[in-house]
Amino acid sequence: MIAQILSTGDEVLLGDIIDTNAAFLCTRAKELGIAVEKITAVGDFAGSIAAAITEISHEADICLVTGGLGPTPDDCSAQACAMAAGDRLEINPRALETMQAYFAEKGFELNLENEKQALLPSASTVMENSAGTAPGFYLQINQCVFFFMPGVPAEMKIMFETQVKPVLIRRFGLDDDIRVERLTVFGLAESTVGQRMNGFNEQFPKIRIGFRADFPVIEVKLIQHKTGHSSNTAAADLVRARKWVMDRLENKIVSESGRSIAQEVGQLLICQKKTLAIAESCTGGLISNMITDVSGSSEYFVFSAVTYSNDAKVRVLGVDEVTLVEHGAVHEQTAIEMARGARQVAGADIAVSTTGIAGPGGGTAQKPVGTVCIGVADAHTAEARQYRFLFGERSRNKTMFATMALELLRRRLVAVGKTA
Amino acid sequence: MIAQILSTGDEVLLGDIIDTNAAFLCTRAKELGIAVEKITAVGDFAGSIAAAITEISHEADICLVTGGLGPTPDDCSAQACAMAAGDRLEINPRALETMQAYFAEKGFELNLENEKQALLPSASTVMENSAGTAPGFYLQINQCVFFFMPGVPAEMKIMFETQVKPVLIRRFGLDDDIRVERLTVFGLAESTVGQRMNGFNEQFPKIRIGFRADFPVIEVKLIQHKTGHSSNTAAADLVRARKWVMDRLENKIVSESGRSIAQEVGQLLICQKKTLAIAESCTGGLISNMITDVSGSSEYFVFSAVTYSNDAKVRVLGVDEVTLVEHGAVHEQTAIEMARGARQVAGADIAVSTTGIAGPGGGTAQKPVGTVCIGVADAHTAEARQYRFLFGERSRNKTMFATMALELLRRRLVAVGKTA
Repeated sequence: MIAQILSTGDEVLLGDIIDTNAAFLCTRAKELGIAVEKITAVGDFAGSIAAAITEISHEADICLVTGGLGPTPDDCSAQACAMAAGDRLEINPRALETMQAYFAEKGFELNLENEKQALLPSASTVMENSAGTAPGFYLQINQCVFFFMPGVPAEMKIMFETQVKPVLIRRFGLDDDIRVERLTVFGLAESTVGQRMNGFNEQFPKIRIGFRADFPVIEVKLIQHKTGHSSNTAAADLVRARKWVMDRLENKIVSESGRSIAQEVGQLLICQKKTLAIAESCTGGLISNMITDVSGSSEYFVFSAVTYSNDAKVRVLGVDEVTLVEHGAVHEQTAIEMARGARQVAGADIAVSTTGIAGPGGGTAQKPVGTVCIGVADAHTAEARQYRFLFGERSRNKTMFATMALELLRRRLVAVGKTA
Repeated sequence: MIAQILSTGDEVLLGDIIDTNAAFLCTRAKELGIAVEKITAVGDFAGSIAAAITEISHEADICLVTGGLGPTPDDCSAQACAMAAGDRLEINPRALETMQAYFAEKGFELNLENEKQALLPSASTVMENSAGTAPGFYLQINQCVFFFMPGVPAEMKIMFETQVKPVLIRRFGLDDDIRVERLTVFGLAESTVGQRMNGFNEQFPKIRIGFRADFPVIEVKLIQHKTGHSSNTAAADLVRARKWVMDRLENKIVSESGRSIAQEVGQLLICQKKTLAIAESCTGGLISNMITDVSGSSEYFVFSAVTYSNDAKVRVLGVDEVTLVEHGAVHEQTAIEMARGARQVAGADIAVSTTGIAGPGGGTAQKPVGTVCIGVADAHTAEARQYRFLFGERSRNKTMFATMALELLRRRLVAVGKTA
């Protein structure tokens, strides 16, 4: 089964938007066992789109098209499709009906521009858009079935899941009985993770492995289609594959279920019935932001002090002025006192702290940009470690510092959980 | 001048990475007056790459190729290029030399895998890679000049700027004497901004307009090539175009120089010699993170209290318990007391605060998800406003709340600056 993806839209060719639709569709296709061979992007010009459609109609079995279904004159995917198929456009009654219903629900009347969106190639089958006005459609041209979806990512995604996928599965006998296992990895470069996975495909030919890097964390995905082998064999196979991968990544795995480190920390805090406080300097609120990106974090997260100035470290967190004078702000002792202080001020069970130099300014020979001290304090102990990262760029440094702080917090919680 | 872009790499077709290189190259091409007509992505298979090259060689004048120049066996762009050009690969002495120098500087020896990277089509001209090992190269095939660059974005970008651009300008007589004006817009949907700019192209045919949405902010860009008209006319034209755009966007312009709202706030604070404190509840550290993403923010930002629990609001910020009992946490009065408290604790000149419901849980009929109260307090006054946003999604709500808070802070600073 060979697929191609066709993105349409001047905004892609002008560089005004990054084509995330193509990456989404590639991932989904892969999970369904469909190989994507080519991605093409062309502008909002019916002639270019029609030419691309004609070419693809001789090369692929499936083509996933996004964009050009809107109400404005530059939206011309349906017209281009009709040109390529030698078909004519006509008002599709079902498309018109669902659009009228969508508008009625919002309390608007359908205008002429929108009615144009119901003009579809006569041989096509309409696909409902539950998240917007533009209906989708599909039809076969030469050897290839073309699925036309909106360019708005939220509308495209739901149309793919609810309308395109079922047709693909039915029409091409695809296997969507898949099992996906996810592992989150931190502390290795993407190329190193890739190298360590060399030999996986030979060892486990029926399981696909994939990677997704979201700096500085990497998700490793194992995808297994269950149909075609007995469920017992398949399950045993997946267990073996998982173990094979875990043996090679060892202690770099921060979540065995694909969660983020902040989510893992949250789960551990909930299980241990503990509350969290944070004291941030160089990370400037990023750790708190990552923690509170997790829905339900109010159950354990109580307070964070972003003490950017030394004065705030002393006033709010009770860091000893002598510590700051003797060691400076970027020092393990300062990190320890910050974590202790945050814990105390908030009345929390455990606290994490950061103090360092994100850059570009502020570095010295002894404490260059990229230096960070991270402290963790709970009822029993308080300790800190110093790290040096060489990314040389402020936002990457902040992200790395914050992720490392969450990882040290996670390790402490895991260690405490084991001894409890 | 017609250009195409060719991205190579299995990781693109597998959906493991989003192709940001293409968007970067489209933007740069546009600025040079080159129209990109098509973007194609194919996998790491010499046959597919060669087929794509052959096709493009008859269609375009310029092709910008990324990826497939690395040391591993799946990197086969040079081989594919030689196939399409009917050329042979040979060790390029200059490529080998610069690689040896690069490795020597890092204290490594060149290994066999890396030597392969110096195997280039005999007719090609090498382009240095100052940020990595893979040399680039360019050569003409049929009517089209192909530029081969690495897939690593940082390496690709610097190679484009320092090696590709000068050749493009020389060879195609391009005009890089351009002037770009940027405006930052907040408070309008992208489609609305687009609508309001209708008629721009007719009015100002020699100036190009572009948009880049970075939720919830939109950058409007005016691009003018200066060559070909007298500099006085050109300058007057750009002034008129800028005024035309600003008249239509009115008070939705948050920066007249394309800065982020956080950068604008920083500039105002520096000019007014003021320090900033923040009190965040529902935004969970995001405002602080946005403020500290600006390099040099330690000059004005002193402290932020992320008081997620009511207890922390009372203990750290001195919010009155009666206020919380009578009005609840999500209320203008609470926001005012939080801003006042943050200002006082930090000894800062001005403070901003947020308290609201980012969702998905925690909403009520009276205060649904998306409700936020934002407070601003300085030496003279403290006031708060309530907003309701209907994005229905936690991370978008947090981003919108934080951006709105920074905008209210910016407006206060502008107002104070005017009366001073």
